Amino acid sequence: MTPISTHLLDCLATTDALASAFSDAALLQAMLDFEVALARAQARVGVIPARAAESIANAARLDRFDVHQIALDARASATIAIPVVDALRARVEEIDAGSACYVHWGATSQDVFDTALVQCVGQAGRILDADHARLTSALTRISQAHANTVMLGRTLLQPALPITFGLKAAGWLGASTRSWARLSAALLDARVLQFGGAAGTLAALGANGLAVEQALAEDLGLAVPDAPWHAHRDRLATLVTSCGVYAGTLGKIARDVSLLMQDEVGEAAEPGGGSSTLPHKRNPAGCAVAIAAAIRVPGLVSAFLSGMLHEHERSVGGWHAEGPTIAATLQATGSALSSVADVIDGLDVDADRMRANIAATHGVVFAEKLTMLIVPQLGREKAGALVTQAVRQSRDSGRAFREVVASIPEIARLLTPDQIASLDAPEAYLGSAETFRTRLVAAAGRRTPL
Amino acid sequence: MTPISTHLLDCLATTDALASAFSDAALLQAMLDFEVALARAQARVGVIPARAAESIANAARLDRFDVHQIALDARASATIAIPVVDALRARVEEIDAGSACYVHWGATSQDVFDTALVQCVGQAGRILDADHARLTSALTRISQAHANTVMLGRTLLQPALPITFGLKAAGWLGASTRSWARLSAALLDARVLQFGGAAGTLAALGANGLAVEQALAEDLGLAVPDAPWHAHRDRLATLVTSCGVYAGTLGKIARDVSLLMQDEVGEAAEPGGGSSTLPHKRNPAGCAVAIAAAIRVPGLVSAFLSGMLHEHERSVGGWHAEGPTIAATLQATGSALSSVADVIDGLDVDADRMRANIAATHGVVFAEKLTMLIVPQLGREKAGALVTQAVRQSRDSGRAFREVVASIPEIARLLTPDQIASLDAPEAYLGSAETFRTRLVAAAGRRTPL
Amino acid sequence: MTPISTHLLDCLATTDALASAFSDAALLQAMLDFEVALARAQARVGVIPARAAESIANAARLDRFDVHQIALDARASATIAIPVVDALRARVEEIDAGSACYVHWGATSQDVFDTALVQCVGQAGRILDADHARLTSALTRISQAHANTVMLGRTLLQPALPITFGLKAAGWLGASTRSWARLSAALLDARVLQFGGAAGTLAALGANGLAVEQALAEDLGLAVPDAPWHAHRDRLATLVTSCGVYAGTLGKIARDVSLLMQDEVGEAAEPGGGSSTLPHKRNPAGCAVAIAAAIRVPGLVSAFLSGMLHEHERSVGGWHAEGPTIAATLQATGSALSSVADVIDGLDVDADRMRANIAATHGVVFAEKLTMLIVPQLGREKAGALVTQAVRQSRDSGRAFREVVASIPEIARLLTPDQIASLDAPEAYLGSAETFRTRLVAAAGRRTPL
Amino acid sequence: MTPISTHLLDCLATTDALASAFSDAALLQAMLDFEVALARAQARVGVIPARAAESIANAARLDRFDVHQIALDARASATIAIPVVDALRARVEEIDAGSACYVHWGATSQDVFDTALVQCVGQAGRILDADHARLTSALTRISQAHANTVMLGRTLLQPALPITFGLKAAGWLGASTRSWARLSAALLDARVLQFGGAAGTLAALGANGLAVEQALAEDLGLAVPDAPWHAHRDRLATLVTSCGVYAGTLGKIARDVSLLMQDEVGEAAEPGGGSSTLPHKRNPAGCAVAIAAAIRVPGLVSAFLSGMLHEHERSVGGWHAEGPTIAATLQATGSALSSVADVIDGLDVDADRMRANIAATHGVVFAEKLTMLIVPQLGREKAGALVTQAVRQSRDSGRAFREVVASIPEIARLLTPDQIASLDAPEAYLGSAETFRTRLVAAAGRRTPL
Repeated sequence: MTPISTHLLDCLATTDALASAFSDAALLQAMLDFEVALARAQARVGVIPARAAESIANAARLDRFDVHQIALDARASATIAIPVVDALRARVEEIDAGSACYVHWGATSQDVFDTALVQCVGQAGRILDADHARLTSALTRISQAHANTVMLGRTLLQPALPITFGLKAAGWLGASTRSWARLSAALLDARVLQFGGAAGTLAALGANGLAVEQALAEDLGLAVPDAPWHAHRDRLATLVTSCGVYAGTLGKIARDVSLLMQDEVGEAAEPGGGSSTLPHKRNPAGCAVAIAAAIRVPGLVSAFLSGMLHEHERSVGGWHAEGPTIAATLQATGSALSSVADVIDGLDVDADRMRANIAATHGVVFAEKLTMLIVPQLGREKAGALVTQAVRQSRDSGRAFREVVASIPEIARLLTPDQIASLDAPEAYLGSAETFRTRLVAAAGRRTPL
Repeated sequence: MTPISTHLLDCLATTDALASAFSDAALLQAMLDFEVALARAQARVGVIPARAAESIANAARLDRFDVHQIALDARASATIAIPVVDALRARVEEIDAGSACYVHWGATSQDVFDTALVQCVGQAGRILDADHARLTSALTRISQAHANTVMLGRTLLQPALPITFGLKAAGWLGASTRSWARLSAALLDARVLQFGGAAGTLAALGANGLAVEQALAEDLGLAVPDAPWHAHRDRLATLVTSCGVYAGTLGKIARDVSLLMQDEVGEAAEPGGGSSTLPHKRNPAGCAVAIAAAIRVPGLVSAFLSGMLHEHERSVGGWHAEGPTIAATLQATGSALSSVADVIDGLDVDADRMRANIAATHGVVFAEKLTMLIVPQLGREKAGALVTQAVRQSRDSGRAFREVVASIPEIARLLTPDQIASLDAPEAYLGSAETFRTRLVAAAGRRTPL
Repeated sequence: MTPISTHLLDCLATTDALASAFSDAALLQAMLDFEVALARAQARVGVIPARAAESIANAARLDRFDVHQIALDARASATIAIPVVDALRARVEEIDAGSACYVHWGATSQDVFDTALVQCVGQAGRILDADHARLTSALTRISQAHANTVMLGRTLLQPALPITFGLKAAGWLGASTRSWARLSAALLDARVLQFGGAAGTLAALGANGLAVEQALAEDLGLAVPDAPWHAHRDRLATLVTSCGVYAGTLGKIARDVSLLMQDEVGEAAEPGGGSSTLPHKRNPAGCAVAIAAAIRVPGLVSAFLSGMLHEHERSVGGWHAEGPTIAATLQATGSALSSVADVIDGLDVDADRMRANIAATHGVVFAEKLTMLIVPQLGREKAGALVTQAVRQSRDSGRAFREVVASIPEIARLLTPDQIASLDAPEAYLGSAETFRTRLVAAAGRRTPL
Repeated sequence: MTPISTHLLDCLATTDALASAFSDAALLQAMLDFEVALARAQARVGVIPARAAESIANAARLDRFDVHQIALDARASATIAIPVVDALRARVEEIDAGSACYVHWGATSQDVFDTALVQCVGQAGRILDADHARLTSALTRISQAHANTVMLGRTLLQPALPITFGLKAAGWLGASTRSWARLSAALLDARVLQFGGAAGTLAALGANGLAVEQALAEDLGLAVPDAPWHAHRDRLATLVTSCGVYAGTLGKIARDVSLLMQDEVGEAAEPGGGSSTLPHKRNPAGCAVAIAAAIRVPGLVSAFLSGMLHEHERSVGGWHAEGPTIAATLQATGSALSSVADVIDGLDVDADRMRANIAATHGVVFAEKLTMLIVPQLGREKAGALVTQAVRQSRDSGRAFREVVASIPEIARLLTPDQIASLDAPEAYLGSAETFRTRLVAAAGRRTPL
């Protein structure tokens, strides 16, 4: 078995750790773990001989399986479970012929495959949890550090009003926290055993089904569901869709950073990567990885949901479509998460440039503030006309909006000198920014780990 | 304003009630409700004159707005909020000119639109809740009634083993219950006020922002979020994705029913609909509506998630893409829910045909049972060969599998007469079906309403 | 019937003209047109009495149908065709009872609905064609006008090398032209009659089926397909996916414009729209509409494709899912197209700012050019180190890259004075930009209309 | 480098041949091919020394590259192009230090990656072409063989009217033929060189850009586009969407076969696969593989289209998202194609069961035929009532519909004995089925190869 679990074409769509979580080795090991745990549970309950369980455990050694052959053979039955079980049986046959018949006793393909997939997902979840903690910590840190760093708030990519970078980072933090809370709940919820036998009744185990189910779940560290879920995929679907929401949140952070990193804006920059031909460039490489994931994942979510209409007790195709989608979704989400954690952790913030970009508007972003001050006295139409005139003068002349305002008597007479002097002070027009920021940071601090 | 809120082309994609929840009238009313509540909250806090609040409330009468004109005007600013606010201001101007300037005081387009959308969503949620209760009740009833009704479990559309129809219905119930639990949580979670002003800081309200926020939220019956969520759409995204999971669950139920309703299967039938040309037909019309929704919704989910990468404090396009998607998703999900509730409530179950379809296999579906009985003595290869021979003989001759088995001495000698006699008794091979069923029904009973 | 065909929630997702193309009136009219043309074709061939055809034509008056009732009734049979045909029959009954039975003679629901939908699509296609011509013309014009306008090429949102705005516009033009060529081909390809009767054999018409098919197609101006396509939706699917590609192309143009329009970039601006609260703002409203469409359409495409697995001769749900998707896709694409045509047609281009933004890099974007000049003599490592040093010096000091280069003897001695002097001249480093531009414009000029 | 190119989790989502087409080896080889061809083209045009081209060609040996390391390094720059080029340069350095600087001369990451991807796509296209030819041939054969095999046409999964299996197969053939025609055109259209340098102008090559472009394209067997397409992805998008349409068509065929293969229908069966626990089962394994692909591909299409909004001259994320999607789409489509070709090629058709299933309706599927015969004399209401009565009597009693009809004087008196006798003869109610069939087969015969 090869240790390389990443394809070149997909290498930005995963991380090395996540590729390992869904590698051939990991999946096959999880399938063998199921078969061994099943045999042991059945031996404990008295369904099969103890010796059979031991022989099965002894035979289930990863290095004795030919992965490529299993992949080829899977096509005939539309599942890798059959060639894996056949191969395990053959291995047992070699060391204890009489026990071979007890391999996979009373189980069905979906039992072993779904349970193994749940185990791979669990491993992926632990990787994501660590990266999420890293992201949370970095976001909290920069939000606190920049509680007083003023910058332009931008709507529709146009300057709107000042905000603080601390608030912006706290917004990212809040969305990440909420998105992870849902995803981690979905990860927990998905940690259930699949065990139902051929049609979901455990008929082959007669009166012993429930006892075996209980023992098997304990051995594997999984919960026992109300019933086998072979044709009801809502838990996995929720896992996939929760990745979709989190990937979207991560993509939003990455998009913001990539926009702040534009040369013409220059307010923040990720450590970034080089260019194959341009020596002067510093590219938002981490943002690119995260945005790429946020572009791909929604389609993967759609693919999963489209396949939920499983026919009767096992579908023709719906089930078969899930594996690649689940693996791709978790890997893409985790790749985005790892990248965004790196981006935020290494983010260069240029507070001077942030302030300078506000100043570069000459203060016309405070036109709303001016309007609110004078409209009660002048009425909407008159006030609007005067403010528009001031904005235009400031823009055309390059003079500070504040000065232009001071030079228009109809406006200036309504304002105190102090109101004029502080008209374009960003700190004087932040509203409840700091309250919002502290609320978001506090909420994130209440997070509980996976 | 027209009372017709459904388009012919979309009429299966919604219900009349849900179409009303997102109708022009409902949306516009919710926008006006926001503006009136905002003015009242501001008057209470002392931000604007009490008289202004009253005039705004008096002017905000639905029948005085030209919906078509608003729709046309929206294009210029990429939001209906601006023409709605302009029209409201004009109405106030007519009755109290001095108060017109206080319309929409300190708020932004997204405040009024998002909050109004949340209110429409809330109304849709109440409609779904009622239909979900109806579905739950019907599923519980048929599951209990058919606890002992045996039928074929089918995997990959082939006969597998017997199950009970009660278990099958309980599986539908379990998935519906879990899906609704998530969706109803998402509906609750989405009931938050949007109120942040131009850049999400409530700067225009100075020190009064938080007091106004609190009063406004109370008036509208919405929760106060940690911070405005203008650029963080994870709550709405979760709402949409939860619809996706529920729609998939509903589609699965509908697909199962449509398959059971095939003339060649004939085990269950929805009340159904007629054909435009074929007098003998009874079509699974309700299933068709639900499956159509389950086909459409995943793409809508994908569309929502794709748009989550909002730039900075308000996006160029991402926000603008959401409205149609949210409305379409909730309506399609609710249309499916209403249809499936009708289908299950009126389901004709043919228990005799269910049993007959098991019998029509001649009992070869019990081949697994036979294998489990003889494989420990004969070993896998020998047992497998004999069972395969028996299956083939039964299929070729049309004789009962049980009789064929009895006629093969190498098998028969290993079985008691009772084992042979009950070999093809469905009731004798149901495993833990009834336990699974009762667990699922019990879990559904613990549901809490919206 | 109401003349308002746009919902407020969807009003950016369509244009007034496209909303009309898929309005209740348009769809119902097209359905009546089918029934009238069918009756006339059958009368001509001798299948039904001539008098029946006339009575049907007389009864088929739009204003005599209750759209809301049809929408409500559709639910029972999962198609509007049945209530429409029933209503038409009732209208005929009123004026000529004996002819009522000839309404919809030998046809099926899908015949009338699919054919009507194809007619609505045709009307939408004509609207798109006109807007595409408008866009093509505007793009050609600005590409020609700005053949020599230099600007920054930007990769990963970072300054790369100079290009011309003429080339950039020509790139938009090329992609639009190719995307429209495919979409217009798909529109043509989709203009086929649906006519197959209950199971696609025209059995009810005996030997007259093909003659009626031919006459009906001629009357409706549609092509005759090889066979009815009731369960094979590849033509419509291609129409929808071609919209997807075109919408993506339009979204790319809009995204570029919205980025150029950033205050900090300021190179181009659409006429734009205002803000509800910020008097200083000019928003990329047209871009927002187009990007919103480009966000939504991929999910709609996915929804259509997911539904293609129609069961046998008419699906349970797959067919029923199509209508809303087709209508939404064409309207969203057309809305984007209309917006982008407006945006480009009214685009303010600031050539000075474009040049200034190159200059603002101090010329470090010419580092590649310098590298190519010196690397053959110095080798890669040495050359790289020197260029990096020059870039850093220029960035740190704010001195022109050209001057820094001149001050580093190891570099300067390898260059002629002219090479140094023109090092940062944008016009001297445009490569084949103009050839590429003229090729693209020429290819667009070869376009043939719908 | 490992020869295993398939992951276990994805092994049904590709074929061995297609996995090879997108394997690490194939992609890396295609990238090296680009760099070698570029050097040779540049040497020919005189841009770089001939010796450099030879050294680069000598160094570009696949087995000297560490794929895993490249995958790890790619993350820093968000592209594998940089580590690949760096590694190639190091290999050249080892054998001819002076030539190392000419590696990747004037090219950019996207040039080498996009062109290599196009080459992998080309190889995949050849594989699909062969499988499509196999499918076409098998479909044509079974359509011809079953031109006269009557079976039930089924709408909404209910019996509608008789059709022929030959027509059904021809419908599959027609849709496959049309879908492939579009996909093969898109494959051809996508075979264009990507070569534009850092910003798409070939600036680094000065006056030699176009000559190098021409020579490079010739060497690689690719067309020269009007201009580099680094930020305009409509050709690839059309390739992906055309796969989407074809996958949908293949999924429809597979769904039909899986439904025909139900034990209760039993009209056709694929060779199929076994079960891990049920010895009596024959599963539609090939159909499952194809349907799984048809479920996944629409989401992949959506992912591609969502990413088309590339910013300026190279996107942040949009480009980076494409590789996995293109590879997964072509592989899934090809996997479905290969499976469906196998399914059709080995299809067991049970013509007797087809006829028997018509008979099992007792002839009520001919109710439409009867209606058409009597409605002109009796009027719609009376005729409808009588036919409904006859259908009900036949259903309740199990008597043949024909006999029931003969026993109802009000109907029987309107029919000739011959009309009654042939009322339920499937062959007498096939309408234009055979014409439609032959038209479809003829159209498929006109197909031209890739």
